[in-house]
Amino acid sequence: MLSAEIIAIGSELLTPQRTDTNSLWLTEKLNSIGVEVMLKTIVGDDELRLEETIRDALKRSDIVITTGGLGPTEDDVTRQVSARAVGRGLVYYEELEGDLRERFRRWGREMPEINKRQAFVIDGAEILPNPNGSAVGMFLKVDRKFLAVFPGPPREMRPMFEDHVLPILSENAGGVVVRRRVLRVSGMGESAVDEAIAPIYKEYTEVQTSILFSRIEIEIHLAARSNDVFKAERVLDELANKIAAALGTAVFATRGETMEEVIAEMLSTRGKTLAVAESCTGGLIAMRLTEVPGSSSYFWEGAVTYANESKIRVLGVPEKILIDHGAVSAETAEAMANGMRERAATDFAISVTGIAGPDGGSEEKPVGTVFIGYSDKEKTKSMKFLFPGDRELIRWRSSQAALDYLRRQMLKLG
Amino acid sequence: MLSAEIIAIGSELLTPQRTDTNSLWLTEKLNSIGVEVMLKTIVGDDELRLEETIRDALKRSDIVITTGGLGPTEDDVTRQVSARAVGRGLVYYEELEGDLRERFRRWGREMPEINKRQAFVIDGAEILPNPNGSAVGMFLKVDRKFLAVFPGPPREMRPMFEDHVLPILSENAGGVVVRRRVLRVSGMGESAVDEAIAPIYKEYTEVQTSILFSRIEIEIHLAARSNDVFKAERVLDELANKIAAALGTAVFATRGETMEEVIAEMLSTRGKTLAVAESCTGGLIAMRLTEVPGSSSYFWEGAVTYANESKIRVLGVPEKILIDHGAVSAETAEAMANGMRERAATDFAISVTGIAGPDGGSEEKPVGTVFIGYSDKEKTKSMKFLFPGDRELIRWRSSQAALDYLRRQMLKLG
Repeated sequence: MLSAEIIAIGSELLTPQRTDTNSLWLTEKLNSIGVEVMLKTIVGDDELRLEETIRDALKRSDIVITTGGLGPTEDDVTRQVSARAVGRGLVYYEELEGDLRERFRRWGREMPEINKRQAFVIDGAEILPNPNGSAVGMFLKVDRKFLAVFPGPPREMRPMFEDHVLPILSENAGGVVVRRRVLRVSGMGESAVDEAIAPIYKEYTEVQTSILFSRIEIEIHLAARSNDVFKAERVLDELANKIAAALGTAVFATRGETMEEVIAEMLSTRGKTLAVAESCTGGLIAMRLTEVPGSSSYFWEGAVTYANESKIRVLGVPEKILIDHGAVSAETAEAMANGMRERAATDFAISVTGIAGPDGGSEEKPVGTVFIGYSDKEKTKSMKFLFPGDRELIRWRSSQAALDYLRRQMLKLG
Repeated sequence: MLSAEIIAIGSELLTPQRTDTNSLWLTEKLNSIGVEVMLKTIVGDDELRLEETIRDALKRSDIVITTGGLGPTEDDVTRQVSARAVGRGLVYYEELEGDLRERFRRWGREMPEINKRQAFVIDGAEILPNPNGSAVGMFLKVDRKFLAVFPGPPREMRPMFEDHVLPILSENAGGVVVRRRVLRVSGMGESAVDEAIAPIYKEYTEVQTSILFSRIEIEIHLAARSNDVFKAERVLDELANKIAAALGTAVFATRGETMEEVIAEMLSTRGKTLAVAESCTGGLIAMRLTEVPGSSSYFWEGAVTYANESKIRVLGVPEKILIDHGAVSAETAEAMANGMRERAATDFAISVTGIAGPDGGSEEKPVGTVFIGYSDKEKTKSMKFLFPGDRELIRWRSSQAALDYLRRQMLKLG
C-alpha cells in the first residue's frame, strides 16, 4: 500500500481564520485508489521550513502533494523552494508566458509583469495545465517517489489532480480500493440514529461506519476496503439498504445527494412545479433549490417577503390574519403558501415565517420559533418548529425542514 | 519573537471527514501573546513518523504543542513516543493511578486495567491536571525549547492550556503582540492589486502583508507585531489608510466587513430601503442581505423570477422587451430593477439576469453572461458582465457584482 503526505502552503493557513480544505478532498481521492495519507503539514511562506518539509516528506512517503504558493506575488515561494528541495533548477517556458498573456488578453487586461514568474517550471517536471487559473501545476518522479505541485484554489487544483495525476497514481497503487457511501438522515438525532443502526453495522466488520452530525442533518459514512471493487460495492449496497430500511423515510439520500438534489429529482420525475415564499430564511430556500442545474424547469418563482406589506401585496395574505395571529403564525404560513401557489400557478408551494434572531423574540414566540407552510391543489397545512442555535443555524434548519416537509408530503401523494 | 509548531495526533484526523480544529484555537491564543505559529502537522498513530515530527519541530521552533493520542487504548502512542523524541523515560505516578481509580469510582465504574497507562508521565515533566477527562497533560523544557502535550478533546485541552501553559509562554514571549486587519477589494484582480500597493506595503517591514484571492473578492491581510498594542494599531491604521487611498473605491471594507455588512451600514445610515429582483442568482442576493441581523429595516422585498411569466406578472417587465431582447439582456435587467422598485416602493432596487450554466449558453450569450440592473427614483441603468467559472462561481460573482454596483451608485449619490 502506497503512503502519501499532503503539504498545504500559505501563511494565511496558519492564521486563526483559515483552514485547509484541499487536504480533505485529496485524502478522499487518494483513499479511493488505496493510497493511505500518513501525514499532513501546513506551512507558511517560510522558505527554510518549507524546503525541509518537502524534503522530509519525500524521504518518508511514496507520494507528496503540495497545494498553494504558486501565485504571481512575492510571497508565493513554492515554485523555487520545491525545485530546491529536489535539487533541481527552474526552466523558463516561452509558450507558458504566451498562454498567460493570451489569457489576460481574453479578460481584456494587460498581463502584469510579475505574472512572468508563472512561466517557470521545475526542470524535468511534467506541466499540468490549469484550465481555471494562471498557475500551472507540476508532476515529477524523484527516485521512486512522486511529487505533485498544485495551486491552492480548489477549483483549479481539483480538475488538475483528477485529470492528470490520479490516473498515474492509481496505476502505481496496485489494486486495493476503498469505496465510500454517504446516507443522509433528516428529523432524527445522532444518538437515536446510532441506537437504531448499531446492531446492523456492527455485523459488517469490513466496513468502517461513522455517524457524523452536520448542522442540518445526520450523515452516515460507510467505507469498505477491498481488492475487489465489485465486492466492496456489493457490501456497501447491502449495508446501505439495511440501514435505509431500519430508519424509514428519515433517510432522504443513500448516495450522498443533498436535500435540494433529492427534491429536484422528485419534482422532475413527477413533472411537478414549485414556488417558495420566504420570510426569515430570506431567499435561502430559493438559493438552495436553484443551485441545482436545470432547476428552472420545476422551480418557477420565489418571493422574499420580509415586510408585512409585501406579504399582503405579493402573496395576498389577508391583513386580518397578520393582525389577529401575527406574521409568525401557522395561519400566516398557510396563507403565504396558498397565496404563493395560486399566484405562481404551480403544483406546490412551501413557505417559511419565523424568528431567526438575535432580536425579535418574545416569551410566547422565542427566537427559533418557525412555521413552515405547505400547499398543493387539495390542501394547505403547516407545522411549527422551535430550532436551537444562532441566526445562521436557525435559517439553515428552517430551510431544511421546509424542503423535508415538501419531500414527505410528496411521498404521501406517491 | 518566539515561534511555535502545533502537532495534531490521531489517525481519524487523516480521514476525509475530519479536520483538526484545536490548532485554530491554539493559533489564536498563541498569536495574542505574540507567538507566531510557523507550521502545523497532522499525523496518525504511526510511531516513527510521530517521533520524527516531534523531534524536527523541537529543532526548528521554540514551542511545540501536541494534541491527542493520550487515551488508554493501544493506538494512543503520544505518551511513549514524545518521551522517546526528547530522549527521556516514562515515570509511574502512584497518586495519578489513585486519582484515576477515584474518578472511575465516582462514575460508578471499576477502572479498566488499560487506563493504568495514563499514570505514566515523561521524566521531569510538569503534570497538567485535567478536570474534564482522564488523561493529564505534560509540560517540559528541553534545552531552551518548550514541549506541551495535551489530550485531544477541545473541552479538556482548552482549560489546561489557558490555566497552566499560556501564562508561562506569555512571560517568555516578552510582551510582543500581533494585531491583524483585513481589507476587501472588489472589481480588481490579484496582480493588479499587488502592483498598485506593493510600493506602499514594502515600506512597512514591521507589518506582514498578504494578498489573497477568494472566489468573489481580493483580501489584503495585514499583521503588525509590536511590543506596544497602540503602536501596532497605529501602524495598521496608517498602512490601511494608504492602501485604501491607493485603490480608491475598489476597497469596500477596511476592517474585515463583508459586502452585505457594508451595504447594511450604508443603507441604515442613509435611511434608505432596498428590494432585489433575481433570476440566475435565484435568491442568493436576498439570502446574503438577510444574513445580517436587523436587515428587515432596510431590505423590504425580494423576488426570484425564473420564469418569463413571473418577470411579467411579478415585476411588470413588458412582454415586448422579453420578445425583442430576450430574458438575458440590459433591457430586461433594467425593467426588472425598475419594476421591483416601483412595486416594493423602496428607494433602490437591483436586479440580476444571466446564464449561470452549465446549459443555456449560446454563441451570442455564452454561459457567464450576466446583466445587473439598478434603479433609484431618478434613473435606471445596467451593466453587462462576463464571468468565468462554474455555476456556483458565476452565481456568487453575480451577487457580489450586483451588491458592489449598488454600493458604487450610493457612493456617487453621496
